[in-house]
Amino acid sequence: MRVKHKKWAEPLIEAHPEKITTDPAQFKGKWQSRFAKEQPIWLEVGMGKGQFAIGMAKAHPEVNFIGLDVVSTVAGIALKKSLEDEELPNLQFICANGAGLDEFFADGEIDRLFLNFSDPWPKSRHAKRRLTYKTFLANYEKVLVPKGTIELKTDNMGFFEFSLVSMNNYGMQYDGVWLDLHHSDENENNVETEYEQKFAAKGQPIYKLKAHFA
Amino acid sequence: MRVKHKKWAEPLIEAHPEKITTDPAQFKGKWQSRFAKEQPIWLEVGMGKGQFAIGMAKAHPEVNFIGLDVVSTVAGIALKKSLEDEELPNLQFICANGAGLDEFFADGEIDRLFLNFSDPWPKSRHAKRRLTYKTFLANYEKVLVPKGTIELKTDNMGFFEFSLVSMNNYGMQYDGVWLDLHHSDENENNVETEYEQKFAAKGQPIYKLKAHFA
Ligand SMILES: C[S@@+](CC[C@H](N)C(=O)[O-])C[C@H]1O[C@@H](n2cnc3c(N)ncnc32)[C@H](O)[C@@H]1O
Ligand SMILES: C[S@@+](CC[C@H](N)C(=O)[O-])C[C@H]1O[C@@H](n2cnc3c(N)ncnc32)[C@H](O)[C@@H]1O
Repeated sequence: MRVKHKKWAEPLIEAHPEKITTDPAQFKGKWQSRFAKEQPIWLEVGMGKGQFAIGMAKAHPEVNFIGLDVVSTVAGIALKKSLEDEELPNLQFICANGAGLDEFFADGEIDRLFLNFSDPWPKSRHAKRRLTYKTFLANYEKVLVPKGTIELKTDNMGFFEFSLVSMNNYGMQYDGVWLDLHHSDENENNVETEYEQKFAAKGQPIYKLKAHFA
Repeated sequence: MRVKHKKWAEPLIEAHPEKITTDPAQFKGKWQSRFAKEQPIWLEVGMGKGQFAIGMAKAHPEVNFIGLDVVSTVAGIALKKSLEDEELPNLQFICANGAGLDEFFADGEIDRLFLNFSDPWPKSRHAKRRLTYKTFLANYEKVLVPKGTIELKTDNMGFFEFSLVSMNNYGMQYDGVWLDLHHSDENENNVETEYEQKFAAKGQPIYKLKAHFA
């Protein structure tokens, strides 16, 4: 996500340690303590400006939602939006690199993981950076509950093809594949991301994969 | 494949027992004897009028190819085409129901299996008839060599979504997924089927999955 650097983002993040952290390792195994209620934790890796994270926290009061992004400007924008919006005691943010997930969460601490419109890294020499590369999957498996679920959405054909093969080869079990999410039954409770709205408006099909670890 | 009944089809089939059989069980474990050379056998289930089977036999002289279809009219058309064409000693036909595959072939007799534009059976109460339903997969696994490969092509989104989930859940390993075959590198050695030409001409994307049993 290319966004212009916002000078106010980092100070705003520092001013709200109750809502966002840049040092998530300190809460490893203790994430429930950051929320009002103890309930299953869902995590989005690469949340961008937080539209999906905020939407999911609203739609699922029975869940504690964490949005994570490595770029402080977008994490700051997500934080700003959530502060201007209604108070959501079941929403937290992290500004850190998703590659370190196993340092941020205890084994099994996360109940469900979301990857939305992840950077596709189309060149094959960059395959290792894709968020569905096997090293990332191994980390997701560790922090997720046993048989934990990943839900992935993207508009990018190459990234979706890669993810279908990578997640299959890792041994994940598919619960569903949708090659045109917005014209399927699966769309009924769909919470749209910012990228999703943009691409869907252009008439591009949205792909979705739901799968769990074996 | 809806085709008008052709009166000449069944007599033509009966007149060419060297090229086509309606009783494939009699050759179980002995298929190599029907070909000029002993070499790996590839099988297409639901070949329709045989364009792919004939094209593959020509493109792959190092392989023995068998085309199978349950409808005698289309099997007859495939036979007629192959008789009018150059003689292909590495091509055989079967007119029978693919559901009986394990009665037609010995375990491991087939080296590779092709499913092209299979009937989608869109109603969920007909899911069991889809050629990628788990009972069919179990039969394919039996007649294929260990870790045997299936190559599937289709234009039908619902059937492709179903097949991706079904073949994954069966435990198959994906070698590749293409969501727009004709605009991918995988298209280079692609032999087109009759349906494929028709749908591609309308601008519809062609889906392909290549996977092997574990
Ligand atoms: C294309 S944007 C999509 C944003 C949002 N999910 C959406 O659908 O609108 C991808 C986001 O992933 C973030 N990202 C990429 N790699 C990451 C990583 N390793 N850890 C955390 N975030 C990452 C980027 O900073 C960017 O904000
Ligand atoms: C839609 S056509 C596709 C034909 C060809 N593969 C193509 O791509 O042009 C599907 C074919 O599968 C055949 N078929 C369907 N179910 C079958 C079964 N259980 N056993 C053998 N053939 C079957 C039909 O008779 C039909 O000819």
